[in-house]
Amino acid sequence: MHGELDKIDTPAVLVDMDIAERNIAAYQAYCDSHGIGLRPHIKTHKLPSLAQHQIATGAIGITCQKISEAEAMLSEGPIDDILLTYNILGSGKLSRLTGLATRTNLTVVADNAAVVRGLSDAFADRPPLRVLVECDTGAGRCGVQTAQAARDLARMIDDSAGLIFHGLMTYPPADAETAVDEWLHDARTLIEAEGIAVPVVSGGGTPGMWRAHQVPTATEHRAGTYVYNDRSLVTRGTCGWEDCALSVLVTVVSVPTSGRAVIDAGSKVLTADLSGLQGYGHVLGRPDIRIAKLSEEHGVLHADAIDLGVGQKLRIVPNHACVVSNMVDQVTQIRGERVIGETKVVARGTVR
Amino acid sequence: MHGELDKIDTPAVLVDMDIAERNIAAYQAYCDSHGIGLRPHIKTHKLPSLAQHQIATGAIGITCQKISEAEAMLSEGPIDDILLTYNILGSGKLSRLTGLATRTNLTVVADNAAVVRGLSDAFADRPPLRVLVECDTGAGRCGVQTAQAARDLARMIDDSAGLIFHGLMTYPPADAETAVDEWLHDARTLIEAEGIAVPVVSGGGTPGMWRAHQVPTATEHRAGTYVYNDRSLVTRGTCGWEDCALSVLVTVVSVPTSGRAVIDAGSKVLTADLSGLQGYGHVLGRPDIRIAKLSEEHGVLHADAIDLGVGQKLRIVPNHACVVSNMVDQVTQIRGERVIGETKVVARGTVR
Repeated sequence: MHGELDKIDTPAVLVDMDIAERNIAAYQAYCDSHGIGLRPHIKTHKLPSLAQHQIATGAIGITCQKISEAEAMLSEGPIDDILLTYNILGSGKLSRLTGLATRTNLTVVADNAAVVRGLSDAFADRPPLRVLVECDTGAGRCGVQTAQAARDLARMIDDSAGLIFHGLMTYPPADAETAVDEWLHDARTLIEAEGIAVPVVSGGGTPGMWRAHQVPTATEHRAGTYVYNDRSLVTRGTCGWEDCALSVLVTVVSVPTSGRAVIDAGSKVLTADLSGLQGYGHVLGRPDIRIAKLSEEHGVLHADAIDLGVGQKLRIVPNHACVVSNMVDQVTQIRGERVIGETKVVARGTVR
Repeated sequence: MHGELDKIDTPAVLVDMDIAERNIAAYQAYCDSHGIGLRPHIKTHKLPSLAQHQIATGAIGITCQKISEAEAMLSEGPIDDILLTYNILGSGKLSRLTGLATRTNLTVVADNAAVVRGLSDAFADRPPLRVLVECDTGAGRCGVQTAQAARDLARMIDDSAGLIFHGLMTYPPADAETAVDEWLHDARTLIEAEGIAVPVVSGGGTPGMWRAHQVPTATEHRAGTYVYNDRSLVTRGTCGWEDCALSVLVTVVSVPTSGRAVIDAGSKVLTADLSGLQGYGHVLGRPDIRIAKLSEEHGVLHADAIDLGVGQKLRIVPNHACVVSNMVDQVTQIRGERVIGETKVVARGTVR
């Protein structure tokens, strides 16, 4: 560790803006070359400034999941186009949704009739709201289960006051591009056979980001993590360590044995998210170290020879970048070894 | 779900103050009856008001791990006695530590010579700081490894300007009271043989809270989770569901199949903390449901017959209460079915 970074108090979440901007440009170029609209999911960075940068680089709009996330994104300037990939329910949230719709070109999703009825009741006397039908193409989360069910819900939306059926959306399973495309193609065909247009088909996911063109039915791709990348994506081969913009700067606070050290970051920063991996992150420059255990404020490192000193600083690439952004009020923006400054994570903690 | 609770927007972290106060009183009575000083760890609630309540009920002081946690605890009124169970390192933190020491009777811990030297340099020209030697009695986190090493570090502290050796501290392994007591007893004996007094021996842990008297060498017990309890403690037999003060109120947003439902709380509220269990929490009244998967904003529930409707509300006892408190800016305090109001989680996100 050298120079300016060594002076940062720990634990600190560092974001290398050079790398983030490079990641944004590289994936925008891929999407442009394949004629795919890129609609970044802002859950990874939670920063209006980076959302604006993504749009300036060519993104067609942004993706949010919660209304409060979208509200936070609009807090530092206008964003023209927001897709809220969530079933919105309940009078409180629907009231906020009508307010949000006056501030941006808003699209939401629905996967069931109760959500469609609620949206229609809220928007019946307002400028109409665009709604995508969420499709479960195999990930086993939300979504209608069959192309026929997608058609039926599309027809219901098309018949509902205050709503415009705008297309399909899926949160796809990893490594299943061909099956996902077939699913979406079948649903689109059935809906078009009803005389209903399907202007948008929204796919997504960072793990499959470089294979988005293998889902030709999709008109746009939602990716979040690509802006920062993380250990899970390096492990999958989506990127390399040099593409990881987010890291956690920590200090070794204890070296109890020759095979163990303890750092000042636990699950309150690195989170308990394993993302299917062993251990809680990757210590840059020390692939032999395993982050074996986390308690809230301690991380326990194991290695055959730990060879670390008390007070030494380390940088850790977490398993999952998005969840780490959510743990801290500020991130420290850097460019290489140079510190730019602290930035508030505006959309941290936006769960409603 | 009835009445006032049904009107709360979700996801919401609910804290039943009747249950929390009952838990605080019950464990205080146990500690009083055994002559053990109770020093609650405030990481569970992160609320100065509950820390004050614990002290008013008889606690001898509080436990914090980070300086920022202690600063937050002092933000709503004085607290006389704070133990910071963390190796404090670096000029920035040591400077804040000297400030903190002017506001409360502060004790810290150390498990290595580098930390002792830093503390001594910072406090040499100030009223002396009390330091406990942290002992690894088997949990494999921080701590000196042997009673002899505890004695050597005690001697170093005793010889250091600005520091007063004040005793021993351990974060003990679960279910090992006899071995932990032997370890601490041996260390105390060795230190006393040097002519150095050992006024305090601080043990801890909620899992072993009802067996604290089986570590007679300890003079005080640090417990955090007992105030709220959680699924991991119910599973261990430490408490029952009726003793769980913290729950997460959620709404079913999708029922894609007869065996699956999706709720509006994912790892951004429930966290990925498994605490060694299967699934991410317990749905009150529905032991047949498994919270099988979390993404950031979605929780996926599985059951043979899910039998839930879109819009239905559920209450979930999380695996680990402390980490859930840290995910939200506010908790909603309730008493039974009555809503008291929202309270800011003052010490949320205190990682430095």
